[in-house]
Amino acid sequence: MDKNAKILIVGLGLIGGSYAQALTDLGFEVGAITRSRSSIDYALGKGMIASGTTEVKSEYVSRFDIVVFALYPHVFVKWIEDYRDYFKKGALLTDVTGVKRSVVYEVQKILTGCPVEFIGAHPMAGREVYGVRNADKRIFNGANYIVTPTPANTREAVEKCKDLGRTLGFARISELSPEEHDEMIGFLSQLTHCIAVTLMTSKESRHLVDYTGDSFRDLTRIAKINEDMWTELFLLNRDELLSQMELFEKQFDRLKTAIRDGDEDVMKEMMRLSTERRRYFDKPADKE
Amino acid sequence: MDKNAKILIVGLGLIGGSYAQALTDLGFEVGAITRSRSSIDYALGKGMIASGTTEVKSEYVSRFDIVVFALYPHVFVKWIEDYRDYFKKGALLTDVTGVKRSVVYEVQKILTGCPVEFIGAHPMAGREVYGVRNADKRIFNGANYIVTPTPANTREAVEKCKDLGRTLGFARISELSPEEHDEMIGFLSQLTHCIAVTLMTSKESRHLVDYTGDSFRDLTRIAKINEDMWTELFLLNRDELLSQMELFEKQFDRLKTAIRDGDEDVMKEMMRLSTERRRYFDKPADKE
Repeated sequence: MDKNAKILIVGLGLIGGSYAQALTDLGFEVGAITRSRSSIDYALGKGMIASGTTEVKSEYVSRFDIVVFALYPHVFVKWIEDYRDYFKKGALLTDVTGVKRSVVYEVQKILTGCPVEFIGAHPMAGREVYGVRNADKRIFNGANYIVTPTPANTREAVEKCKDLGRTLGFARISELSPEEHDEMIGFLSQLTHCIAVTLMTSKESRHLVDYTGDSFRDLTRIAKINEDMWTELFLLNRDELLSQMELFEKQFDRLKTAIRDGDEDVMKEMMRLSTERRRYFDKPADKE
Repeated sequence: MDKNAKILIVGLGLIGGSYAQALTDLGFEVGAITRSRSSIDYALGKGMIASGTTEVKSEYVSRFDIVVFALYPHVFVKWIEDYRDYFKKGALLTDVTGVKRSVVYEVQKILTGCPVEFIGAHPMAGREVYGVRNADKRIFNGANYIVTPTPANTREAVEKCKDLGRTLGFARISELSPEEHDEMIGFLSQLTHCIAVTLMTSKESRHLVDYTGDSFRDLTRIAKINEDMWTELFLLNRDELLSQMELFEKQFDRLKTAIRDGDEDVMKEMMRLSTERRRYFDKPADKE
């Protein structure tokens, strides 16, 4: 990445803050726009950003070569509508939004005619805590980064966006269409959050703490969930999430039927397949 | 615990081996009986046991004050049937079996008239690997240990069994009836394993590794599963497991309906409850 590129983070929460920290530590000039003055002050105090403001002004926005949006989807789209003319000519715009079909095409449409290029990206990293005070650039290490180009994107922008992912420290950088992304994320991330929430709301559970092993803890770590953000993400990907939930229900029912019927062959076959496939997901540290 | 107590481990796998290691390191004399000569040799070589044999002989078994069974349920019951007269008078027998109703009462019945007492216990610790070569006494640190007395048990045996749990390093020691245990474990452990297996068998998933975040990894860690052991455990707790699966399905369907209908109130209410309840399960290290 061009060492002189100036980078603006819009939305200084956990992810935006972690981007800022990582890029500043690498020597880039990083600025920030966010709603809360105290978030700006915190980030300035910690040396995570070189400048920051709560007001959106053309003179400030137009100083930056790369702009990263780390906002709720509806806030992000509204922001682009309001300030589409503020960007520097030739700026690359990207985001961190967890859904793509409903955001990427709309943002590209709004920006039609503007001398900038927007390309979607999804850093697959997070924590169960929020805000810039919990920012930690180490969450990107070993994680996946997905770029979601559309036919409107140039090859140059795709490469620059991938380069940003590599610079941030992501381990695997890949490309998916917005449609492929939303199907994947419906299964890997949204469905798993639905399962965690379901487990955690199935029983009054305070007393269960005394009896649990690690498996229940593992399956519910992500049950601490920001209800505004995830409700928005689920509804923006509703059709895909519902098909992934139905796929899961069907397979769960297959296992339940086998247990009910004492069908050891089916039970063992599913467990063998499960064991075999899970090995693909071992991180080097998990391997014995 | 009486420092002079001699302890016999029957079944030298991951859990049996970890018991042996912990107790030997604390200065107890530990013996072992297991099928595989190489497991005995390994444990002797590593100083995990003072003696060990693959043959079940009365002269050997009768030397021990405490006998811990770490076997598959059906092997355990058969063992007791075959060798019920081999134990030292006054010996305390316990186990590590993951289901209780179907085992505890039967073992106590077989031992009727023998001058020994059996009391069930379930150490809530494990790993996704097997065998004495993976034994590690540290898996007990911070974990839960459940003692499952029946009306046939004496208070003295209950206390001795709890004392064994404390000695092994478990953080929380509790008592449940075999029935309460099986309901709890049906939900906390068996249901979660069913979910992990279902997730892992829902899609061909080798390519998913490039796109996944930590949530899918967390939910499927336990999808690497010993199919013989878990099929046996599921079927021995079939009625409870099926009711826990149905409870989960009902709640999952509630969330699915809310998503389909765009019912943000129900979605957010479930997420808030989930977030609130999950806090009970934070380990000290998870807390911010």
